[in-house]
Amino acid sequence: MTKLELNILGCGSATPTLRHSPSCQVLNVRDNLMMIDCGEGSQLIMRRMKLKFSRLSHIFISHLHGDHCFGLPGLISTMALHEKTGSVTIHTFAEGAEWIQATIRQFCHELPFEVKFNVIKTGTHLIYEDNAITVTTIPLRHRVPTVGFLFREKPKLRHIRPDMTAYYDVPHWQINALRCGEDFVTSSGQVIANSVLTTEPEPCRSYAYCSDTMMSSRVIQAVKDIDWLYHEATYDNELQLKAQHRHHSTAGQAATVAREAGVKRLIIGHFSKRYDSEELLLRQAQDIFPATILANEGLTIDLNNP
Amino acid sequence: MTKLELNILGCGSATPTLRHSPSCQVLNVRDNLMMIDCGEGSQLIMRRMKLKFSRLSHIFISHLHGDHCFGLPGLISTMALHEKTGSVTIHTFAEGAEWIQATIRQFCHELPFEVKFNVIKTGTHLIYEDNAITVTTIPLRHRVPTVGFLFREKPKLRHIRPDMTAYYDVPHWQINALRCGEDFVTSSGQVIANSVLTTEPEPCRSYAYCSDTMMSSRVIQAVKDIDWLYHEATYDNELQLKAQHRHHSTAGQAATVAREAGVKRLIIGHFSKRYDSEELLLRQAQDIFPATILANEGLTIDLNNP
Repeated sequence: MTKLELNILGCGSATPTLRHSPSCQVLNVRDNLMMIDCGEGSQLIMRRMKLKFSRLSHIFISHLHGDHCFGLPGLISTMALHEKTGSVTIHTFAEGAEWIQATIRQFCHELPFEVKFNVIKTGTHLIYEDNAITVTTIPLRHRVPTVGFLFREKPKLRHIRPDMTAYYDVPHWQINALRCGEDFVTSSGQVIANSVLTTEPEPCRSYAYCSDTMMSSRVIQAVKDIDWLYHEATYDNELQLKAQHRHHSTAGQAATVAREAGVKRLIIGHFSKRYDSEELLLRQAQDIFPATILANEGLTIDLNNP
Repeated sequence: MTKLELNILGCGSATPTLRHSPSCQVLNVRDNLMMIDCGEGSQLIMRRMKLKFSRLSHIFISHLHGDHCFGLPGLISTMALHEKTGSVTIHTFAEGAEWIQATIRQFCHELPFEVKFNVIKTGTHLIYEDNAITVTTIPLRHRVPTVGFLFREKPKLRHIRPDMTAYYDVPHWQINALRCGEDFVTSSGQVIANSVLTTEPEPCRSYAYCSDTMMSSRVIQAVKDIDWLYHEATYDNELQLKAQHRHHSTAGQAATVAREAGVKRLIIGHFSKRYDSEELLLRQAQDIFPATILANEGLTIDLNNP
């Protein structure tokens, strides 16, 4: 299977505590690392989880609250000290790009790698695409402009059946066309259906990161039928009014989004520091959407197995 | 004794590692907390060491390298969430004040406390004074403008001998004058020497923070005869050329400064991440200046006992 792993580096809210670090995740797409949010201390957890700075290529910042981006100055400085090369692209709102640029100007002279910026906007936009995935923003409802990120794998190549390609004497140079789904025409003009020569490709997985946000019908639409959903669940159900007031969600609301959207699995996180254990949040979410798990620092999830 | 404690929150160099946090100390002067440098993650170690945000009044930033100030944005945000009141004064160079102000403008709307700035310069200047202490900058030799900080307790009040003040019938309203050292004149005009009525006050302690810096004769002059010296010792003696090249000190050089200045005790820190243990650095420093100890995260030192 092609690697698609989600690493949870921080799943606390508002401020680092002795139990949780602020928001940060690293998506490993075939050993290309993509960071989502970067709370204070993220660089240290990257190190602890043995995620290599050299492989980090993109950083997606959901919104400009400190618990989602105060780790950036230190991360960039440390990558410079580690003599990272190439480039890192930071996808963030214009004001975020300005702050990071000002910080780099003051503190990081002569970076050995390039920091590129992709200035994003609220709404639904394709903001990144490569051979393996697309990344689209998801409009979220928070106190400041905020987006989620939907990562979708692109269709993968079909698997060759070596016994059948040998039987029909398929020349080497036509193998790629078969992997892309084309039929094969023999030298005598006989058409061999692709399905005879290949088997189904691996499924294309999808993952959505939705934090910070109130429960929102637009989120439900955006994450319809995806495999994995990370949705914030800052508070338990009893604190729904507080959640609403602060533009956050409860565990029950996160689970409702998952159920209504028909996703396969739900990960909840962005826990308030008021909880000594998140078991209550898990129970409340599982009451509505059983396939829920708790985020936790150090957790690595194989997204190939929803 | 009046409380004078030094808390070590971080004593690593350059970047947070699994062994050390970047530079941060908190001086507790009679339960008034004064922070010296604020590397990434300092707020979390404050919490771990049970140092109260509400008591933090001053932050002194030695220079504008990230490992000495990237914890400031998160610390300020977290204090706002903790509804700190009053004010915090940040003593820093003009460019540092600008960066923090820009960060506050972007991320910390409606702070419940005031952030004041005292713009400092290189050289030797009295930058702070209250009833208990003075703080003076120490010119250091580093790659960017850098100062150390010399904290000196002010003369303390003499202790009253209640037996003698009763014997001479000293009225209550004259007690403070005795504590300040004045003699007492009885109603019949007899002069009673202060030394008969009081005993010596507690000694006035002094502490100097010198990081980051090369070994420097100006530092030796500035810390002459003080009680406690924190001096960086980034490298072991073998790496003296590297230390010189990067404008840092070796353990032996830190100890030489302590010996030449005639200080009572030396604390070494700002350790390079190349060391799995700092025992080598300690041994090399103690060869020259035996009264040396190693800094370490979580260490609290009673500065009343040099």
